[in-house]
Amino acid sequence: QNDLLSATGTTVFTVMSALAVQHGAINLGQGFPDQEGPEVVVRAAAEALLDNRNQYPPLTGVPELRNAVAGANRRFYGLEIDPLSEVVVTSGATEAITACLMAVLNPGDECVLIEPLYDTYLPVVRMLGAVPRLVRLAPPRWELPRAELAAAFGPRTKAILLNSPMNPAGKVFTAAELAFVADLVQRHGAYAVCDEVYEHLTFDGWSHIPLMTLPGMRERCMRIGSAGKTFSLTGWKVGYITADRSLAPNIAKAHQLLTFTTPPNLQRAVAVGLGLDDAYFSGLSADLQAKRDRLAAGLSALGFGVLPTQGSYFITADFRPLGFTGDDVAFCRHITEAAKVTAIPVSAFYAGEGAPNHYARFAFCKADAVLDEALARLGAWK
Amino acid sequence: QNDLLSATGTTVFTVMSALAVQHGAINLGQGFPDQEGPEVVVRAAAEALLDNRNQYPPLTGVPELRNAVAGANRRFYGLEIDPLSEVVVTSGATEAITACLMAVLNPGDECVLIEPLYDTYLPVVRMLGAVPRLVRLAPPRWELPRAELAAAFGPRTKAILLNSPMNPAGKVFTAAELAFVADLVQRHGAYAVCDEVYEHLTFDGWSHIPLMTLPGMRERCMRIGSAGKTFSLTGWKVGYITADRSLAPNIAKAHQLLTFTTPPNLQRAVAVGLGLDDAYFSGLSADLQAKRDRLAAGLSALGFGVLPTQGSYFITADFRPLGFTGDDVAFCRHITEAAKVTAIPVSAFYAGEGAPNHYARFAFCKADAVLDEALARLGAWK
Ligand SMILES: CSCCC(=O)C(=O)O
Ligand SMILES: CSCCC(=O)C(=O)O
Repeated sequence: QNDLLSATGTTVFTVMSALAVQHGAINLGQGFPDQEGPEVVVRAAAEALLDNRNQYPPLTGVPELRNAVAGANRRFYGLEIDPLSEVVVTSGATEAITACLMAVLNPGDECVLIEPLYDTYLPVVRMLGAVPRLVRLAPPRWELPRAELAAAFGPRTKAILLNSPMNPAGKVFTAAELAFVADLVQRHGAYAVCDEVYEHLTFDGWSHIPLMTLPGMRERCMRIGSAGKTFSLTGWKVGYITADRSLAPNIAKAHQLLTFTTPPNLQRAVAVGLGLDDAYFSGLSADLQAKRDRLAAGLSALGFGVLPTQGSYFITADFRPLGFTGDDVAFCRHITEAAKVTAIPVSAFYAGEGAPNHYARFAFCKADAVLDEALARLGAWK
Repeated sequence: QNDLLSATGTTVFTVMSALAVQHGAINLGQGFPDQEGPEVVVRAAAEALLDNRNQYPPLTGVPELRNAVAGANRRFYGLEIDPLSEVVVTSGATEAITACLMAVLNPGDECVLIEPLYDTYLPVVRMLGAVPRLVRLAPPRWELPRAELAAAFGPRTKAILLNSPMNPAGKVFTAAELAFVADLVQRHGAYAVCDEVYEHLTFDGWSHIPLMTLPGMRERCMRIGSAGKTFSLTGWKVGYITADRSLAPNIAKAHQLLTFTTPPNLQRAVAVGLGLDDAYFSGLSADLQAKRDRLAAGLSALGFGVLPTQGSYFITADFRPLGFTGDDVAFCRHITEAAKVTAIPVSAFYAGEGAPNHYARFAFCKADAVLDEALARLGAWK
């Protein structure tokens, strides 16, 4: 069997979700909302099943959704995108990330990855025979270490994978940071895979800037969005890639090898979603911001060292002030069993040695009553 | 960009479907039915959207579908499968094939592939750094060349990919052929990826035998089924893998890197489908057999050399008797433009030199009126 996979553990999200179920714990681990997205979108998906369009849609996506993705690029970022040749719809952002990496990496190429990182990045890069170059951001400040990032780029660099807003850090990259990244990418003739699934989930006036909007970056970026995250329907597994016409054909061919296409009824419903008015998008981030505030205040009151979250579903919190002396894996297992609340150890987002191991990631994309109950349970346990 | 993908053309199915649209041709190319599957299944999918289960389902599939897949294995083949540890649901059979190859192949391993082959097999094997060993079946008899197959196995053989019923050949492998394959697989300690998407589409009393049911093969086979093909809903992209518990974990990890999970409402509906009574499954193959007969008779009457089809959606036909002197690519383009009927050149299913190039593949999974109109157009053109 494949050595790389054999040596890889089951994903931490599945492990912790299973543990949560086993112990009847409130699952603030895996990032999914417990309230579903706009009814108009869900109803559109149900209706779209009933009018005889359930056979293979075009490989790159149904026209409705490719048009809607192009429209959203214009509306939110002023990007002019050709829906025919510059959009590829995928079966979720996970597939999109894998397809973009496949599209550009050759065996032996180097790919810059930034820790903390989502747990598919590294195995996919390795599976493609490419060489990961890891650069580390660390809590509590999650600062971009510019010198180290510059040093990670070299003559064999083919790509960087950038996640902003960043999971689990809750960090939104600034214009200055993005300009620094863009300069490196251009100077090395590299590409950027931009995992922007939390693009619409930003708070406190932080707004997401796609790397693709920076000067010189339009032809170098593969920008990934997620219907699951944007419409609180994470099971639908509809992702979309925006990329220059010079890149999109290889991405489409990778998509062909991975899934070929994505259910047409869900695609059509997501097109409806992307056409919702501004109130939907501002309402989504305002709702989540209130939930972030609720959970942050509660965790702070319990004594956690709560880090700021500018975007995403997640709060990172230092549990040492509570007097817990084990590491983050022990902590997350312990609170699942003892407090019946589940979180994800932040070290799971680090591949190298010496990862930060005294932070837990809590998802706040849950009903207020669920957050309150989780806080009450943690209070009772403490 | 990735050299392998850059050197790969757009899939023949997309190319020919686009050409069909461009010329207003009847599309007997890409294999999808023009009549949709059971209404009860479609309605189940619509209803399943409306009860708040649209977030991430378990990585290996919703329990309903895993149970249904195990049930179908028992019912149709007498295979006892544990739904918890031996089923992985994927976003279509294409993903399933890629996931199974990823699960077992290491760079440098050899993988035996049989021509004619579906157009993702070879690039996926190469992308994984494995070495394809091609063995060729050729029309008109599609006979398994046993000596060549045996010679293709060696000390570095890790897997064989076997497609039965076979696209485009319409061949159902016999018990004797499967026993020959099984013996080679076992003697070389290899695995078999079994693309069985047409398992329920067999005719004239031919019945599909999963390689997995042969003695000694249960631990060596990854058996792939397709809801799209089984329920005439090809756009849904729900596939399912049955594999021993010693193999399923690596398949699940590959699935995690490719898509992570598959829409829960579609999974639940497919579970309903797999529970339909025998009349559904026998009706499906009887319907398709009648369509095969209709198209075969019509093509024969026009002078085509029609090869027998034991299973699948496809007829292979020799066009030389019509006096067409170009190759199959020219023929398929020509009838698309001149007769307004599209077929797929059989040479597209061959990777090596000297492929058969005077056969066209016609899909018969279409309404009778559509088949009749296609035949009338071909008659008028001829
Ligand atoms: C696809 S499971 C993980 C969901 C997620 O993005 C997270 O929890 O980080
Ligand atoms: C996924 S597009 C190709 C469909 C098919 O199996 C075929 O036409 O051979």
